[in-house]
Amino acid sequence: MWPFSAAEIRSRLAATSVTLRRCLRLGVTMAKSKFEYVRDFEADDTCLPHCWVVVRLDGRNFHRFAEKHSFAKPNDSRALQLMTKCAQTVMEELEDIVIAYGQSDEYSFVFRRKSNWFKRRASKFMTLVASQFASSYVFYWRDYFADQPLLYPPGFDGRVVLYPSNQTLKDYLSWRQADCHINNLYNTVFWALIQQSGLTPVQAQERLKGTLAGDKNEILFSQFHINYNDEPQMYRKGTVLVWQKVDEVRTQEVRLPAEMEGERMTVTRTRARPVPLYCDLIGDAFWKEHPDILSGDN
Amino acid sequence: MWPFSAAEIRSRLAATSVTLRRCLRLGVTMAKSKFEYVRDFEADDTCLPHCWVVVRLDGRNFHRFAEKHSFAKPNDSRALQLMTKCAQTVMEELEDIVIAYGQSDEYSFVFRRKSNWFKRRASKFMTLVASQFASSYVFYWRDYFADQPLLYPPGFDGRVVLYPSNQTLKDYLSWRQADCHINNLYNTVFWALIQQSGLTPVQAQERLKGTLAGDKNEILFSQFHINYNDEPQMYRKGTVLVWQKVDEVRTQEVRLPAEMEGERMTVTRTRARPVPLYCDLIGDAFWKEHPDILSGDN
Amino acid sequence: MWPFSAAEIRSRLAATSVTLRRCLRLGVTMAKSKFEYVRDFEADDTCLPHCWVVVRLDGRNFHRFAEKHSFAKPNDSRALQLMTKCAQTVMEELEDIVIAYGQSDEYSFVFRRKSNWFKRRASKFMTLVASQFASSYVFYWRDYFADQPLLYPPGFDGRVVLYPSNQTLKDYLSWRQADCHINNLYNTVFWALIQQSGLTPVQAQERLKGTLAGDKNEILFSQFHINYNDEPQMYRKGTVLVWQKVDEVRTQEVRLPAEMEGERMTVTRTRARPVPLYCDLIGDAFWKEHPDILSGDN
Amino acid sequence: MWPFSAAEIRSRLAATSVTLRRCLRLGVTMAKSKFEYVRDFEADDTCLPHCWVVVRLDGRNFHRFAEKHSFAKPNDSRALQLMTKCAQTVMEELEDIVIAYGQSDEYSFVFRRKSNWFKRRASKFMTLVASQFASSYVFYWRDYFADQPLLYPPGFDGRVVLYPSNQTLKDYLSWRQADCHINNLYNTVFWALIQQSGLTPVQAQERLKGTLAGDKNEILFSQFHINYNDEPQMYRKGTVLVWQKVDEVRTQEVRLPAEMEGERMTVTRTRARPVPLYCDLIGDAFWKEHPDILSGDN
Repeated sequence: MWPFSAAEIRSRLAATSVTLRRCLRLGVTMAKSKFEYVRDFEADDTCLPHCWVVVRLDGRNFHRFAEKHSFAKPNDSRALQLMTKCAQTVMEELEDIVIAYGQSDEYSFVFRRKSNWFKRRASKFMTLVASQFASSYVFYWRDYFADQPLLYPPGFDGRVVLYPSNQTLKDYLSWRQADCHINNLYNTVFWALIQQSGLTPVQAQERLKGTLAGDKNEILFSQFHINYNDEPQMYRKGTVLVWQKVDEVRTQEVRLPAEMEGERMTVTRTRARPVPLYCDLIGDAFWKEHPDILSGDN
Repeated sequence: MWPFSAAEIRSRLAATSVTLRRCLRLGVTMAKSKFEYVRDFEADDTCLPHCWVVVRLDGRNFHRFAEKHSFAKPNDSRALQLMTKCAQTVMEELEDIVIAYGQSDEYSFVFRRKSNWFKRRASKFMTLVASQFASSYVFYWRDYFADQPLLYPPGFDGRVVLYPSNQTLKDYLSWRQADCHINNLYNTVFWALIQQSGLTPVQAQERLKGTLAGDKNEILFSQFHINYNDEPQMYRKGTVLVWQKVDEVRTQEVRLPAEMEGERMTVTRTRARPVPLYCDLIGDAFWKEHPDILSGDN
Repeated sequence: MWPFSAAEIRSRLAATSVTLRRCLRLGVTMAKSKFEYVRDFEADDTCLPHCWVVVRLDGRNFHRFAEKHSFAKPNDSRALQLMTKCAQTVMEELEDIVIAYGQSDEYSFVFRRKSNWFKRRASKFMTLVASQFASSYVFYWRDYFADQPLLYPPGFDGRVVLYPSNQTLKDYLSWRQADCHINNLYNTVFWALIQQSGLTPVQAQERLKGTLAGDKNEILFSQFHINYNDEPQMYRKGTVLVWQKVDEVRTQEVRLPAEMEGERMTVTRTRARPVPLYCDLIGDAFWKEHPDILSGDN
Repeated sequence: MWPFSAAEIRSRLAATSVTLRRCLRLGVTMAKSKFEYVRDFEADDTCLPHCWVVVRLDGRNFHRFAEKHSFAKPNDSRALQLMTKCAQTVMEELEDIVIAYGQSDEYSFVFRRKSNWFKRRASKFMTLVASQFASSYVFYWRDYFADQPLLYPPGFDGRVVLYPSNQTLKDYLSWRQADCHINNLYNTVFWALIQQSGLTPVQAQERLKGTLAGDKNEILFSQFHINYNDEPQMYRKGTVLVWQKVDEVRTQEVRLPAEMEGERMTVTRTRARPVPLYCDLIGDAFWKEHPDILSGDN
């Protein structure tokens, strides 16, 4: 004979198990606080204030990526435009980027000197740029490579570099643009020798060993009738992204008076957008035309 | 009367312009070396040797992202599985990751103590993880959300944390798993109150204020007949990814003898793959079952 | 009967022991290379180029030190002059310091922007300043405290701070000078209340609670007939050390012609020396008078 | 005719000047807060928790210092003992140092893994060690060099290195001791060749070029009848400082009963002191004898 009714037993068991569970859970909760000391192992990586913060991304193994996806040589304009689309997305989605510069499979983003985005933590800057750029690359791929499916998701490595003065920042961008020029001149001749003269890559490399820029221009001009300066600016100069006011026209469906039926209303809105320029950054002209980029408030 | 023939003039002009161009190009080349001093501004961010390097990623604004893409509440198994697919891709594409742990919109990756990948540069570790994860997220989205188009490319922030000993590493993972437990228990009750009892979010929040784990279990049990321990392990424990030997069967088209025509040949290959487990990391059992993860060679 | 002569035995033993020792030593030599991996644990702490590097020192427990050595209150001019002597020694012995500023028990040293001393390693900067200052403090003690023996060797803590622009550097120095002003005004009244009005420290503190600078001036003027602006500049402004050409006259013993016997020859040499100024750093005047300090070449 | 009495004028002027001064002072006070933003430029240099923190000091230009102060060659025991006295002072004055090791003009200090002294800021650790050591060097000089006045205050550079495990810490100390052995063996032969065989430094260097440890032992033995192993341990092994309980006997003047007049009372107190050992650190024996140094609580 049980001294308790079934209902009573059930209720007591429930109560017990609740207590038991409470204890167990309490254990885990306490456990969390017990483990929280591990947070102190995170290092502070705040960027020095009042410095320009540059994040530079580079495609990982893009040699292989370009081959697998049949990129045109020496330049694939679709690939370059996709890079720029991603960079624009980064500028729109993240905060405080005042200028970006891209060439080949790399892009540099400059955060304003006085940015306090995420308390200037270097890791936030670089991982948010890298991840936003990478997800955009896959997201917008189709818009630039309609006929070429993306075979695998690409990776990008990034780094943060600080520049304490306007001069050092300008010299950084000049360095990247000079790099663009030198590589593009080389690649233009290199691929002309292969594609038009039928040399093997090794032969082309051999042919160019020790040549100066002038020699390469000469080869292009005399052998392929190419005036290097007539090559597209985007290839020779890379892409500069700056914020510019843009008029955006949107067609809006509005309920119109009967006599206007069938017509549509358009709304024009002026917004700042990251706009691509293919211009020289090395001389002073660009900076004089865009004095706001380096201005004291940034 | 020109003293020179047309041909001669052309040739002299060409020669001049070549010289001129050579000078100009030389200028740019020299410019590059002139600018290269800016490389010295890059800081060395080598991770202390012999420490476990952990990279943790977090979805950026995933609250909004989840809403826009109608994630099921409190857990969307498709979203969790997509996260795990991305983490697996990261482990396969990058080097030296020995274990990963994910829950909600975050994932932690542990590089082996003695990894010398990219000379242990913290920026390489975190940006390559972040970008590979983000590009994979878009790339594999369709496999998990067939009916739900991806509206925009998401971002992830990342950080690097060093743990100098096995104990601190285990405590780090325990911390994340305890966090998973606490949040998931809370969310399970919170959403039950909203979805099944019709409370508003504010009311649900009010109802749970000050409750301990045991109280929440009790509400689930008494009010919704949910035994929290019967909830899916993936929700309660998160996902652990470890390398395991997996037999992979591939069907191969081979030219077979006439009498076997119509048959197919399969090839079985054993490969190490990152395999998901939904198990407890806080106790000792897991580490005893997988002694190789923390072994001295790692 | 030994088969060998004593000489032979000795020689063989010697040979053996040499071989044995060679092995043992070889063991240690190899050991060193075996241990050398520990060098990789040293982190690179290079200061960002083109930034002003400031090292600030603070006396450790100087409250106690001042009491034990009966420093005059609120200012002990001997102690301040000894600090300045140490700072001058630091400037003479180390390289690339362009200006220093001291007050109370602290001193700041500014290395020129483009210094490449010890490859700009922060640890070198701060430990060499700290150790040179500390050893000088004991070395020159007697010259300033003839009647007061030094009871124990004092410690100083130091830190490195980078300032990316002239403005931030000037603001740093202004911050320290404003701090000097505020503390010295407070201390001047505080000690007047104690020394002249017979208040206890607690009473004096109570009396000054909530008073503004103007109130303190008023107390000094009305109660003690002290016009704060007549207090020594060294107390109110602190000490600025800048390099200045100084004519140094040395008397030299030279063998003179007979008819000049008994006379002495003096040689005057112009050398740059760190010279103390007690002037305002907050306004522009100082920087206009010493344009070379912040000039681009530094 | 003045409308006011002299007293009134004086009082009004005083009031005005007080107001004026108040304003001026207020200006400076506000200025301080205006400048305080410069504090944010200070970087966080917290040492990774749970790692052994090693500070190593090296004498600056001690070659020259040794010559100027006529240090005995190859080893000056007074100089070594003074170094050890300074290291003992550092251990007594600073906190959390569990072991130190010195040889030649260098000393390493090991802070316990879990030290939270000055919140584990690397700059505090290294500057306090460097400055305390340097001031002690001058302070105690006379006790070791009674006949040799100190000519100028020496400098020491320092660095912080983190070791994440007991093994890496032991290997660090072994590395320094192996370095001591190699240098001391070299120097012992080098100076014997000079002092006893009359070689010039260049000739001695030439003689030793390419020799292994065994060769050097042989030269010492055969040419100078020196058994290297009989050289003082302090020279061959360096100095290890560990905390040991020491009975300290103090003679105290006490008023004694008449019949005990003329006697003195001594008080014995047991205190932990940094005690020098000249022993091997490379093998296991030392660590087995002193298990507390590396114990988990440290």
